[in-house]
Amino acid sequence: MRAAARAEEHRNGAPAGPDADGRLPLGDDRSHRKQGGQRPHLSIGRGPVEGGAAVEVHANVGDRDAGGGDRRRQDGVAGRVRVDGTGRHHAHAEGERQHDAQRQQALSDQASEQESEHRHPWPSPDYTEVVRRTVAGWPARNRLLGWASRAARPDRGVIPVDRPEIILAPGPTPIPPEVLLAQGSPLVYHRGPGFGGLMRDVTARLRTLYRAERARILLLTASGTGGLESAIQNCFSPGDEVFVPLAGFFAERWARLADAFRLTVHPLEEEWGTRLDPDRVADALARDPGIKGVLLTHSETSTGVIQPVRELARVSREAGAMVLVDVVSSLGAVPFAFDEWGIDVAIGGSQKALSASPGISFVAISDRAWGAAQGAENPRFYFDWREYQRFAELPDPENPWTPAISVMQGLHAALELYFQDGVDAALLRHQRLSRAVKEGVRALGLDLFGEGLDDNWTVTAIRAPEGISADTICDRIRSDLGVVLAPGQGPLKGKVFRIGHFGYVSELDIIRGLAALEMTLERLDHPVKRGAAVAAAEQVFQEAH
Amino acid sequence: MRAAARAEEHRNGAPAGPDADGRLPLGDDRSHRKQGGQRPHLSIGRGPVEGGAAVEVHANVGDRDAGGGDRRRQDGVAGRVRVDGTGRHHAHAEGERQHDAQRQQALSDQASEQESEHRHPWPSPDYTEVVRRTVAGWPARNRLLGWASRAARPDRGVIPVDRPEIILAPGPTPIPPEVLLAQGSPLVYHRGPGFGGLMRDVTARLRTLYRAERARILLLTASGTGGLESAIQNCFSPGDEVFVPLAGFFAERWARLADAFRLTVHPLEEEWGTRLDPDRVADALARDPGIKGVLLTHSETSTGVIQPVRELARVSREAGAMVLVDVVSSLGAVPFAFDEWGIDVAIGGSQKALSASPGISFVAISDRAWGAAQGAENPRFYFDWREYQRFAELPDPENPWTPAISVMQGLHAALELYFQDGVDAALLRHQRLSRAVKEGVRALGLDLFGEGLDDNWTVTAIRAPEGISADTICDRIRSDLGVVLAPGQGPLKGKVFRIGHFGYVSELDIIRGLAALEMTLERLDHPVKRGAAVAAAEQVFQEAH
Repeated sequence: MRAAARAEEHRNGAPAGPDADGRLPLGDDRSHRKQGGQRPHLSIGRGPVEGGAAVEVHANVGDRDAGGGDRRRQDGVAGRVRVDGTGRHHAHAEGERQHDAQRQQALSDQASEQESEHRHPWPSPDYTEVVRRTVAGWPARNRLLGWASRAARPDRGVIPVDRPEIILAPGPTPIPPEVLLAQGSPLVYHRGPGFGGLMRDVTARLRTLYRAERARILLLTASGTGGLESAIQNCFSPGDEVFVPLAGFFAERWARLADAFRLTVHPLEEEWGTRLDPDRVADALARDPGIKGVLLTHSETSTGVIQPVRELARVSREAGAMVLVDVVSSLGAVPFAFDEWGIDVAIGGSQKALSASPGISFVAISDRAWGAAQGAENPRFYFDWREYQRFAELPDPENPWTPAISVMQGLHAALELYFQDGVDAALLRHQRLSRAVKEGVRALGLDLFGEGLDDNWTVTAIRAPEGISADTICDRIRSDLGVVLAPGQGPLKGKVFRIGHFGYVSELDIIRGLAALEMTLERLDHPVKRGAAVAAAEQVFQEAH
Repeated sequence: MRAAARAEEHRNGAPAGPDADGRLPLGDDRSHRKQGGQRPHLSIGRGPVEGGAAVEVHANVGDRDAGGGDRRRQDGVAGRVRVDGTGRHHAHAEGERQHDAQRQQALSDQASEQESEHRHPWPSPDYTEVVRRTVAGWPARNRLLGWASRAARPDRGVIPVDRPEIILAPGPTPIPPEVLLAQGSPLVYHRGPGFGGLMRDVTARLRTLYRAERARILLLTASGTGGLESAIQNCFSPGDEVFVPLAGFFAERWARLADAFRLTVHPLEEEWGTRLDPDRVADALARDPGIKGVLLTHSETSTGVIQPVRELARVSREAGAMVLVDVVSSLGAVPFAFDEWGIDVAIGGSQKALSASPGISFVAISDRAWGAAQGAENPRFYFDWREYQRFAELPDPENPWTPAISVMQGLHAALELYFQDGVDAALLRHQRLSRAVKEGVRALGLDLFGEGLDDNWTVTAIRAPEGISADTICDRIRSDLGVVLAPGQGPLKGKVFRIGHFGYVSELDIIRGLAALEMTLERLDHPVKRGAAVAAAEQVFQEAH
């Protein structure tokens, strides 16, 4: 049996032993592995890494080849490392090692910059040393399973081993072993104190994450799309007018969904990759005074862009509209504040930054949206918020229908892990991993896609080099090395590929992903300086150490 | 820490170690355990077990106290054991042990009886010795994990141990360890050959189970209710007329769902517990020639009644209506034949007889229903069958939205286990467990609820004894002994309690459940002959051995 076929079988959760009677064949092996192809010798190049200085990276000029809706940002070119269009970078070392106090100061400075630029409530003033210590990986989790260290595996060179694929796609994200154990444990019955306790804990954690003190928070058994549908069904009646700024696949999903339920959709059509301009949204809203709701996408996963939801929500509320935000792939990875930003509905999912399995979508609902739900005339049953709320208010909270109990058990464990380090540490980790990916990719001479790169901490969209399809890169890195990236969607198909770096992802996960990208590009005859991407990522991590 | 609280924490998947920072309190301990109460000495009484004769049990006279919609069946009083209204039973032993050939003959006779009475295609003519050997428990599964036997646990008397609750409720059902391992394994990415293989396998297995050769089979991330909603959304337009025979909670859910989507609902109101009369349905359909669809519930879980879907489907089709059947809690536990019975839509769920976790609903769709879906005007998006079908037809089948991958991995393993023994063995097992529960309960002098008891193999509804609320029995057996039964719903609340005996349930699971019931009734001051229920169940199992 070929290794690839065995690996696939392993991924399918099939038993390792011989087949029993009647076992169906697993699908064709569509591996693109090049049989007998040459195995390039892997050597890590010496990159321009200079000590562990607290270097900040703010760069955007790699976006020079910015057709297809990409626009340059004029701000954000700051900090102490510049990356030019060739992907080379020049670090200004400030010393061999800073004292802890100095690093703390640097973090505080950076926090102030963030604060003044974005006015979001992160990092909170009282974050502590634990943030700095745990942001790189997930060391705090070692408390949970008692792992002091893991034994190093023998170096097996380029010989593939049978192991699960390495997911660096923008969701679902890798699942921590503690979460796997929880979702693989005997089920808690869904009516009674056990499940009630789970629901209470999960809801309380999500409330903290949403920064929503009074909002109703409901847990639905569905993909994120189901959560979005629940918002359309519960907040609106046929014919209601909604405004949808379009700048990517997931914004367009909002529009298709609203249209399916017979709402009147007013689109603002921007090119994919645009970071929306609140002033343009305000102007558009002023032209249509009847708009009842604005449908926003926080993390536009198709382009990597984090939209400025705080400002978009402000202009929407000023126009008298409810604000509904898809935070499926953003909540827990980038700052968000339901109450402070004046959000009415925010829909999240279990399988993104929170590192649980897909299957549960959650919805935070403001008083205003709850009021709207009482009179909304869209037909609904499975996603009827009133039913969910009625069951959530039982002494032992329940779902009205049989929920995805095992996914809930996993989500409970995932939130427990997330809050061991805390929100601040998690956000800082996402910021840092994002920087490392972007610097690494630039060091290979590739161009990034999408505006607002400094803020795009969830997924990085990368233009394929001239003459190579992005889909080929995705196929090849997966079949050769078992790394799952995401191809481009819609107009970006074949043009960009995407690396997800949220959820249960560590520094070394990024490093190995970049190494895999280096090797894959070389195999596709794209000139690569071996180790360059890895070196650039190391630099980001080392300066933050 | 009290044992109950520890057990609850265990069920929540919480870590065993000390709390980390910020851990939320798990819900209140609402255990009804009587502190310091007397511990009755448990002694197994000697029941009227007489050898291992091939005794058949067909009895209905225990239904004498049949208020609340219960009606007596005049047929079915056959076989060699009679159970009278007092719950006492009289066995006619036919010998110490029969030869295998004789037993085989008995099975064949029984099969013929079934065939002539129900005309369903089960057992198939070619079922073999393996059916007989594996029907009691799940011994075939031992091939999968290599369990030769399990070490006996020390007898700890009545001292409770920290362990998951024993679920004998009608779904979700207990999950086999192989399924837990599969759903606790690293996730397969949902786009690509790995997940495509999972979908192909699962769909093929379900096709066999549905007995549906050409039907489209779609897999939705939702509870069973979501699958039902998908049928209403995709088959109908507002104002369409549907017919719903009402005889329990789940039939009424169909009606509420249809009403929520603005269909015109023609109900046939029967008392809860009724086994529907196809002639009455035919008469009602004749009065409303505009009816486009008939909404049926195969296993009416609220009453335990298996409805005669084959005959109901026939009269419905003769009236020109589409036939939609909720088979959520019946598929895999009782005979079903999509093609042969002329079904148009059958909606199942992962968490019932198939023993996987809740979170996936599946839908089988006839050509006629598929045609209706092309023109149906009900608004839909998340559950739009056309989208699901488009993705199911990809070379590597996918879901349009991110599916509940871990639940799918578990469902894959669950179907693998199910088909190790095969459909015939599984159906025979459900029949036998059902008999054992019913005989055991009658031996305690309790009355059964609902018509058609011989066919009701999924759940048994039991009238609470005079002066004791059924809810009290459910509360007490759960808090004292960790056994989860289900209370009565709607008009049966407080009057009946329900024991589920489908899915991953063995003979000894039934035995311990009945023993727990004996102990609980005694603690509630209901006179019980200790061991009587267990003895009656043993008799059913021994005669079948």
